[in-house]
Amino acid sequence: MNNNYALIMAGGVGTRLWPVSRQHLPKQFQDLLGLGSSLLQLTFQRLSEVCPKKNIYIISNLDYEDLIQEQLPEIKKDQILSEPELRNTAPCIAYAVHKISRQNPDANLIVAPADHLILNQPEFNRLVHIGFEAVSKRDILLTFGISPTRPDTGFGYIEYNKSSEENDIFKVEAFKEKPDLATAESFIKAGNFLWNAGIFVWNIKTIMKSMATHLPEVNMLFEQGKDFYYSEKEKKFIEKAYHDCPNISVDYGIMEKAENVYVIPADFKWSDLGTWKSVYTHQDKDEQGNSTQGQVLCYDTSNSLIKVLPDMLAVVQGLDNYIVIEHNKVLMICNKDQEQMVKNFLNDAKARGFTDYI
Amino acid sequence: MNNNYALIMAGGVGTRLWPVSRQHLPKQFQDLLGLGSSLLQLTFQRLSEVCPKKNIYIISNLDYEDLIQEQLPEIKKDQILSEPELRNTAPCIAYAVHKISRQNPDANLIVAPADHLILNQPEFNRLVHIGFEAVSKRDILLTFGISPTRPDTGFGYIEYNKSSEENDIFKVEAFKEKPDLATAESFIKAGNFLWNAGIFVWNIKTIMKSMATHLPEVNMLFEQGKDFYYSEKEKKFIEKAYHDCPNISVDYGIMEKAENVYVIPADFKWSDLGTWKSVYTHQDKDEQGNSTQGQVLCYDTSNSLIKVLPDMLAVVQGLDNYIVIEHNKVLMICNKDQEQMVKNFLNDAKARGFTDYI
Repeated sequence: MNNNYALIMAGGVGTRLWPVSRQHLPKQFQDLLGLGSSLLQLTFQRLSEVCPKKNIYIISNLDYEDLIQEQLPEIKKDQILSEPELRNTAPCIAYAVHKISRQNPDANLIVAPADHLILNQPEFNRLVHIGFEAVSKRDILLTFGISPTRPDTGFGYIEYNKSSEENDIFKVEAFKEKPDLATAESFIKAGNFLWNAGIFVWNIKTIMKSMATHLPEVNMLFEQGKDFYYSEKEKKFIEKAYHDCPNISVDYGIMEKAENVYVIPADFKWSDLGTWKSVYTHQDKDEQGNSTQGQVLCYDTSNSLIKVLPDMLAVVQGLDNYIVIEHNKVLMICNKDQEQMVKNFLNDAKARGFTDYI
Repeated sequence: MNNNYALIMAGGVGTRLWPVSRQHLPKQFQDLLGLGSSLLQLTFQRLSEVCPKKNIYIISNLDYEDLIQEQLPEIKKDQILSEPELRNTAPCIAYAVHKISRQNPDANLIVAPADHLILNQPEFNRLVHIGFEAVSKRDILLTFGISPTRPDTGFGYIEYNKSSEENDIFKVEAFKEKPDLATAESFIKAGNFLWNAGIFVWNIKTIMKSMATHLPEVNMLFEQGKDFYYSEKEKKFIEKAYHDCPNISVDYGIMEKAENVYVIPADFKWSDLGTWKSVYTHQDKDEQGNSTQGQVLCYDTSNSLIKVLPDMLAVVQGLDNYIVIEHNKVLMICNKDQEQMVKNFLNDAKARGFTDYI
């Protein structure tokens, strides 16, 4: 019996990638890069190289249940964990861990977001195997930390003890909130800081023990469901559990408090595809630095991301460093260095009553 | 019996206003300014103030016959003159003049393009009445010349004799081709040059006489139809006449050659709405100088024309002096000072096989 399991977290809304990412179809369900597969499908494919497909679970909002089944027809209904309410990551982890432990109390579990890009699959496989091996033998909570390539202020950081290395694994000193630029620069200079990508590797016994210690209330709630998982009663039980569960993240609730937290520095060409700029970074570009999707004609245009639906024709003249997106009745034009404005666009659109467009 | 007639020329394609103006629906059939009426409807309304609606004729390509009937349900089928082939203005005028003369050999006729904007209707009415009065009494060919407001190189000019004035009417010295900028500036400085707007006022006997003199071949062709106009045989006759008719403009064929050509300088707030810049000029603008149509949110954007279909939402950030048009599956973004590029866009789109979008 294979003890390796995966949990794909597919509950995000991806507002920064509006207007492509929309409430009814968030970015993880879309072919954001034009590769022919959605990000969820790519993530499933990636994880299927490190554990059996039947051991890959997807957790997301109830609204997306049909969508997940449609995009991943090879999985069973039991592998889809539907959250009845929008909560943070702690209840989501608690649900998955308690459920999976009913099937395999010795499971090793990798937890990963559905909407990230990882280009170096062999390196990913190698590090996950190191992780699975470690957590199956040692009573530690592992996380992957991405080797930073720039002083990005959009990520949390993981500080680790450089001299604690043992088989590619280091002791975590502290988790750091998203820093300001000066702090981020000092992190890069220090050399022992990694980006927190929200990718964890745990043995299910270890994480359950930590949960019992640091989040006893949450742990208790989901432990009470042990007789209902994999049964018809699961759905109803989860509805109540979520209703009673506090809104708390696994980072804050467990990882930042536990003593036995370790990190594997990872350099497997990772992007969270969190913003249009990061999407642009991972696209093929022409000689003028333009990345286009759809039928696009460019004139005097450079360093821009231009993306329209396949049945559109876009003609763009005289833009440098812009994002131009046309998607399902929304057109967005924005300077690439002003992409944080997307949140304002969404808020204003909501306030103006353009609810069909968000 | 009212002798005043109008001929609306509605056969243009308006390529410079792509992507709104399209082969299957040129700009004259569209509500380009968001006023609730197409340009053709506005022109019909305007001319109905100077002659009875039953005396207003529309000439256009056969392809647009149904569209005209739909947009102007109050006119009879006989008032729509359908051209079987794309010819220049001389055959179009010859057809209309010979047809109308069968109904009223004393008709006074104003000829006007379907796609122009005239804001000062009372002044237009006043000048047209002066024109009708003059051509019904004197054996002259009248044209309206627009008092120029800038040294525009996109129009032909009419040079007139300043000291020849008689009841607001001046003798034309010469028609001038579209000039270069220096020449246009010298025209403005000289003070006796007007824009040729292609608006004519003639008595039908006078224009027929001129046609017989200067375009005898064309004149003969359409005279042969005198027994067929207003009958079932008209369509078939016209098909043959157009096939045999040379491709020639009324300006070149008659107006530039005739001796008895006069002009009324007109200042009735005219625009040919020939380019996006001229459309922008005639639109309401917000404090930032933006003219928007549709659901548009602007951020750090100024002096721009932004037009999307009513079911779209556009969010535009960081543009100054741009044209942004989304219309029927085409998105065009272009610096306002580079709008002559629209012809290149169209040619390239055609060359690339994007024929559905032109």
